[in-house]
Amino acid sequence: MKTSSRLGERKIIKILQSHLDAMPKMPVPFGDDVSAYDLGNGKLAVLKTDMLVGLTDVPLGMSLWHAARKAVVMNISDFAAKGVKPLALLVSLGLPASISREEVEEIGRGLNAGAREYGAYVIGGDTGESTDLIISISLFGLAKKKNLVLRSGARPDDIVAITGSFGKTAAGLKILLGKAKSTETLRRPLIESVLMPHARLEDGLALSLSQATSASIDSSDGLAWSLHEIARTSKVGFLIDKLPVAEEAIRFATLNGLDASDLALYGGEEYEIVVTVKSKFWEKAEKAVEDAGGKLIRIGKVTEERQVLLKTKGKTRAIEPRGYEHFKTSEQ
Amino acid sequence: MKTSSRLGERKIIKILQSHLDAMPKMPVPFGDDVSAYDLGNGKLAVLKTDMLVGLTDVPLGMSLWHAARKAVVMNISDFAAKGVKPLALLVSLGLPASISREEVEEIGRGLNAGAREYGAYVIGGDTGESTDLIISISLFGLAKKKNLVLRSGARPDDIVAITGSFGKTAAGLKILLGKAKSTETLRRPLIESVLMPHARLEDGLALSLSQATSASIDSSDGLAWSLHEIARTSKVGFLIDKLPVAEEAIRFATLNGLDASDLALYGGEEYEIVVTVKSKFWEKAEKAVEDAGGKLIRIGKVTEERQVLLKTKGKTRAIEPRGYEHFKTSEQ
Repeated sequence: MKTSSRLGERKIIKILQSHLDAMPKMPVPFGDDVSAYDLGNGKLAVLKTDMLVGLTDVPLGMSLWHAARKAVVMNISDFAAKGVKPLALLVSLGLPASISREEVEEIGRGLNAGAREYGAYVIGGDTGESTDLIISISLFGLAKKKNLVLRSGARPDDIVAITGSFGKTAAGLKILLGKAKSTETLRRPLIESVLMPHARLEDGLALSLSQATSASIDSSDGLAWSLHEIARTSKVGFLIDKLPVAEEAIRFATLNGLDASDLALYGGEEYEIVVTVKSKFWEKAEKAVEDAGGKLIRIGKVTEERQVLLKTKGKTRAIEPRGYEHFKTSEQ
Repeated sequence: MKTSSRLGERKIIKILQSHLDAMPKMPVPFGDDVSAYDLGNGKLAVLKTDMLVGLTDVPLGMSLWHAARKAVVMNISDFAAKGVKPLALLVSLGLPASISREEVEEIGRGLNAGAREYGAYVIGGDTGESTDLIISISLFGLAKKKNLVLRSGARPDDIVAITGSFGKTAAGLKILLGKAKSTETLRRPLIESVLMPHARLEDGLALSLSQATSASIDSSDGLAWSLHEIARTSKVGFLIDKLPVAEEAIRFATLNGLDASDLALYGGEEYEIVVTVKSKFWEKAEKAVEDAGGKLIRIGKVTEERQVLLKTKGKTRAIEPRGYEHFKTSEQ
């Protein structure tokens, strides 16, 4: 947990924003998954930047290839949540002076793998010296204004749904950090979920084209946090009555005496999409994702009452607005 | 100087590129000042990313406001060299956990100042925790394909010119690092050149619109390095017969027994534009910059022979392909 002397990411962003002049007619508000510039004629240039830092984002056991690929994927996941196809990306690298040729090659191959997997290209960037490894990605794409789904459009009685089950990365990270027991069978898929994340790009593009969604967010800060973000920006609440926890996460939780729901809610670095869908469009949305090769899972509904609640086995409890905390910070 | 075990920035970029699939019909090759995506109809989306790292880029005496503003300006300078108006930018911040509210405010105000000074807006970004201060900027703009001037178009007999005199930042940096003598009168303008750089955006936009230039580069890696870059990519050489060294740099050099030409050639972080101009268009180019409020200074000509030479007082010597080295590295 962060100590009180630490400002925390959200507070820092708020302070920064209060000192920035807002661009007139900004098509996407500060704080959404992506930023955009209005090109006119209903078209947007969509931009995103996010940075991977060695010390806080690269656990032991993660190779440089994995880290570089993941830096790309985590940016693409934000595009996926907005239904935007990534076209090109730039990379800004901070590298320790002692880095070897082999390590640079690994980073180059990892960046390329991440981009090509989603049809994008690395078209430029820069490198400099830093004490810690820094991989900062900036992503570019084009979108139709009417297809870009913000966080703020959820309305009471909309259905809330996700593109996959949760809980594996929280378990995988505990294994990588040597903080939990696992079995041979469990170890591999759980660690793999941390090392080889996949962005739900096809699902996101299909959902955006279906125009059935009212709000959308990428779940990389954790499912609980993502629900609270939609709730906050849409001024609504949620009643979650089904929490799809990954089979492996349930077995891992039992083995370690942990609560599987907590792994699913308060984990993070899980690159699913969380959407709200007008109930009359539910079948349309479900079919769009199915046609794209995915599966849209209904987990509850949007409520007028501004609380985020979980109802299981007849009991209702609040889902806390706790986000994913970088593993380094959480050790302190 | 870098030791032989260090790869160096140029080598690192070369290794990375060899592992990247090139986007088909890339409008701007890898390694130029900016990157671009073809929007069709002769229009380009122009992108740039560059990172400021606390340890290597922020000398003692530079405030966080200055550092944040500079991080923006150094990116805008690359747009200036290509004649592209910056429209919007994202910022990715790596901040030490101990950062205070006042420090975050300083960064926010510095970012905004840098952007607004050139008509751009900060439209988004992200923050994370890192040991060192990291300010990674990604810049977006639009350009007409025919107006974007690459590094590679210089031809023999073109005139080479710069938008201002050189030498002040090299001197200013030595003062900030406590490595040189100065006087009260000299100290201020020389340090100011390091803390408050200005991008030659108006000059660059005017030059691009004039269509008189055959090649263009931003001089932030040093004048010598910039000349060698145009020479290498255009497959030409240079004969420089006039080296405009700033008055204050000359006085600083005399005071410290240094060679003023060396300060001008091998310094860096000087945000002038270095261009080559077809001789028949010289007056057009000169007038364009003058109308924009600047001054285009002829320093020599492009040669077929692929050497970069300096001719002063009847003597001719080679200008070395030495670039600007970050102050931290150069101390080692």
